[in-house]
Amino acid sequence: MSELYAIGIDFGTLSGRAVLVDVSSGEVVAQCARDYSHGVMETCLPDGTELPVNWALQDPTDYLEVLGEIVPAVMDQSGVDPEQVIGIGVDFTSSTMLPVDMEGRPLCVKPEFSSNPHAWVKLWKHHGAAEQAERLTQIARVRGERFLSLCGGKINAELSLPKLLETLENAPEVYEQADCFMEAGDWIVRNLIGENIRSAATAGYKAFFSETERPTEGFLREVDPRFAGLYRDKLGGRLIKLGEAAGRLSSDMAKRLGLKAGIAVTDGHLDGHVAALAVGIDGPGKLLMVLGTSAGAMICTEKRVELPGIFGVVEDGMIPGYYCYEAGQSCVGDMFNWFVKNCVPESCETEAKERGISVHQLLTEKAAALEIGESGLIALDWWNGNRTCLVDSELSGMMVGMTLATKPEEMYRALLEASVFGMRRIIDHYEEYGIPVRELYACGGISKKNPLMMQMYADVTGREVFVGESDQCPALGSAMFGMVAAGAEAGGYSSVAEAAATLGRVEKRTYRPIPENVKKYEALYQEFLTLHDYFGRGVNDVMKRLRRIRDNVRGRIE
Amino acid sequence: MSELYAIGIDFGTLSGRAVLVDVSSGEVVAQCARDYSHGVMETCLPDGTELPVNWALQDPTDYLEVLGEIVPAVMDQSGVDPEQVIGIGVDFTSSTMLPVDMEGRPLCVKPEFSSNPHAWVKLWKHHGAAEQAERLTQIARVRGERFLSLCGGKINAELSLPKLLETLENAPEVYEQADCFMEAGDWIVRNLIGENIRSAATAGYKAFFSETERPTEGFLREVDPRFAGLYRDKLGGRLIKLGEAAGRLSSDMAKRLGLKAGIAVTDGHLDGHVAALAVGIDGPGKLLMVLGTSAGAMICTEKRVELPGIFGVVEDGMIPGYYCYEAGQSCVGDMFNWFVKNCVPESCETEAKERGISVHQLLTEKAAALEIGESGLIALDWWNGNRTCLVDSELSGMMVGMTLATKPEEMYRALLEASVFGMRRIIDHYEEYGIPVRELYACGGISKKNPLMMQMYADVTGREVFVGESDQCPALGSAMFGMVAAGAEAGGYSSVAEAAATLGRVEKRTYRPIPENVKKYEALYQEFLTLHDYFGRGVNDVMKRLRRIRDNVRGRIE
Repeated sequence: MSELYAIGIDFGTLSGRAVLVDVSSGEVVAQCARDYSHGVMETCLPDGTELPVNWALQDPTDYLEVLGEIVPAVMDQSGVDPEQVIGIGVDFTSSTMLPVDMEGRPLCVKPEFSSNPHAWVKLWKHHGAAEQAERLTQIARVRGERFLSLCGGKINAELSLPKLLETLENAPEVYEQADCFMEAGDWIVRNLIGENIRSAATAGYKAFFSETERPTEGFLREVDPRFAGLYRDKLGGRLIKLGEAAGRLSSDMAKRLGLKAGIAVTDGHLDGHVAALAVGIDGPGKLLMVLGTSAGAMICTEKRVELPGIFGVVEDGMIPGYYCYEAGQSCVGDMFNWFVKNCVPESCETEAKERGISVHQLLTEKAAALEIGESGLIALDWWNGNRTCLVDSELSGMMVGMTLATKPEEMYRALLEASVFGMRRIIDHYEEYGIPVRELYACGGISKKNPLMMQMYADVTGREVFVGESDQCPALGSAMFGMVAAGAEAGGYSSVAEAAATLGRVEKRTYRPIPENVKKYEALYQEFLTLHDYFGRGVNDVMKRLRRIRDNVRGRIE
Repeated sequence: MSELYAIGIDFGTLSGRAVLVDVSSGEVVAQCARDYSHGVMETCLPDGTELPVNWALQDPTDYLEVLGEIVPAVMDQSGVDPEQVIGIGVDFTSSTMLPVDMEGRPLCVKPEFSSNPHAWVKLWKHHGAAEQAERLTQIARVRGERFLSLCGGKINAELSLPKLLETLENAPEVYEQADCFMEAGDWIVRNLIGENIRSAATAGYKAFFSETERPTEGFLREVDPRFAGLYRDKLGGRLIKLGEAAGRLSSDMAKRLGLKAGIAVTDGHLDGHVAALAVGIDGPGKLLMVLGTSAGAMICTEKRVELPGIFGVVEDGMIPGYYCYEAGQSCVGDMFNWFVKNCVPESCETEAKERGISVHQLLTEKAAALEIGESGLIALDWWNGNRTCLVDSELSGMMVGMTLATKPEEMYRALLEASVFGMRRIIDHYEEYGIPVRELYACGGISKKNPLMMQMYADVTGREVFVGESDQCPALGSAMFGMVAAGAEAGGYSSVAEAAATLGRVEKRTYRPIPENVKKYEALYQEFLTLHDYFGRGVNDVMKRLRRIRDNVRGRIE
């Protein structure tokens, strides 16, 4: 028998990526990525319609365009026969929602809706529904809605409900005309198989789909009578559990992508969580850190615990058979990029250019030459708010300890350390509530590019850090889910656990805590904690007051 | 009668400057500045002898070299006949101390001492005696020494005693061989008139010369038995009060400088305080703000009050007949320069170059376009510690409120505001202890170059700000003291008050508080105060602990 393959398709914030993976070895034999033509629309629609601040929309036709390029590209590159491809896995950012008609066509492609911002895709980081999120939380608290425990007690503006309520309130015609609101990942799957299937994991995390705890109709009615039938009328579609096949590739789409019709297609997974498979996480105790522009910190448990301040908890959310908790940090790489863009002097940029390395590399190299504590600086990593465990998007950044001798690489290192301290805080939070965290598994750009920071994770947390072998863990994880969806009979795997155990890979090199460093960082982490609580837990709400003053000023200017 | 003139000589940290001033109009008719050949020696002596960190020495021969250039230069430029010059005023940084022999020759010019760092001039900002300063304070506190009230309860390492004790302990041969330790300003005067005269004002502020409160011999003996005779044995010289002539220009020096022998020479004044005369301050209620790399904030009162946390208080210290208080901020322009050097991206530097303006100008322009509170930032201005009223050189900088959208000009503005808030804190401190501050008089580079910041002083303090007309207020003030030293009989002035009233000048344009701005800044100032007390008054000593960690690390590396 010739080799078999599966395709993993990973839709990120700015681009989509496909990988073609060998079913028996897990090797990525071809990969291809393409940017979305319209990227993230933050200021206006393609026709020039202006958008309010804090908005982030996308054009769904970009996704199909990218899909039509990257899949044929990996087939071409590899020379693999379509007969050898047994399954497709899909993951997507979320909650990234769009309204569609009965046939699954996005409302924004219809002329009557093309100038209506609410008819387009609301990207995960669309923050236009902050007010709705707060209102939903208030009402749910007063009513004692059980679903609040699914999101740590606070509804984040990035979840589905606030986004849909925002549409209902500001564009009722869109809400009414929508046959259905879909996660973009589910919508891609619908395009692949021709059926409306909803990923239970994604719906669980982002829209509180839970058999026993979902928002009550009474709650939805109190929010707005027109919202009462939300789940029944606007969020239809069969729910598919992690590891099951959503359906089979349609012949139309098979032709378009150069694949064989009828192969297995997964549901639309969460883009961070799928990486768990690629790094071989198969059960509790192993924290998945997805380190990119922001950071995810996911972990499984056998028993459900009540955990305040987390982003989400879903049964079978990351690995079937476990409760899976999601926590995270709202900015990690984004904060380092902000620093490089705004705070690095010409001399650094010149030096990096002369040496043919990036400014990040240069600063990391200089930062690595510093001893622990040598900078004399401590920062709080809240440049984009705090996602866990304070769940407060109104918090902001802080740095202390600067002198006239402070250098850019010292401030850069303080930001790296702040990110790692923030992760330690999440780990401590998990453990305080009875969820053990024994080992750390890292994937994402930073895990490959920044060994200094990876050693920090080990030293600051006192835990061994494993780094995913692939530099495309989410896409690889999706391909692995594709192999599971295909099943053993098609040459794939009979379970998620089997796929993880067989193909999950970490680098040989791991990062182990260096006892001397652990001790030194502990002193700094205690300082971080004191400042964390002072600025984050209401002792001094200066960050919120400054933000309010700023927003008032800006509101008046506009 | 032809016009009469006086010369003012201002010795700064990096250069010396002379102005030739018309006695009747106060006009500066010629000026010349020259850098010291050896600048500030921070790493090694001219012969290569290495210096410890935190040291700052100078070469006294540089002063005479500069003096010999700048005075003939202003005479040449102006074409004024030496007969028309009636007096010379001198001011100098302090406490800037050097050991000299019986003839007044610096020990460092002698071959046997030329490699001994303690034989050179210890510049005001020499911080090698921090440990001595702390020990002196401790012993004085335990003994209840009255002189502590002259320096706000804490002996700063920049004062004379720590520097001399450092010499005694580390280079006893220098201490022993020194006939006398002199302020560099007094030493210049000695060179001009051939006599050892000590400025009572300078000695009062920097070495606790006070008839009733100076350090007791018992205290000095407890510090070190060899230190017991300090005032008697090592700090001799006749004391001269502000406004009196120290002596007459010697014929040797007259020949060298191209002046007439026998004209009046003042004592060596404090470089900041002399500016009071140039801006016309003649009594209480008027705060002199000298705004440069650091900031001085001087004010007079009729009655002496006990004021903790100030830098110094001296009877007749700035204006004869009053108690004169000195307070200040350890870095102002230095902090802005740090920011421009370390934190400004290439794009800003390029834009400034293209427009032919400095980065400071560019950032100030962009910062001025922001509304109050629009940055969402607050900073503490302690990049070089806090001089008043916390008197703590171990404090460091802090900034809060950064987001991913924060721009360099917003951080720059936050630093400008922090400096102004720091000044407001000093003003509040004076007033809380019964010293009224009714108007602000500003001089120094920032007062001329940064109208944005000057308006902030008015808005933040709610007081009118007057800016000295001259851009050389200290040198002009020294020249005016030269006219007073010459006296009315020589065509000068009979008193300091008369000179101030006749020649003191401020710009026509003043900065008045704008009520709307006053209100907006008040909210931000309250946030500043809360953070000031949290980080500065022991609630959270994180700055000190981070510094200790840093110093330990550095100590181990070295």
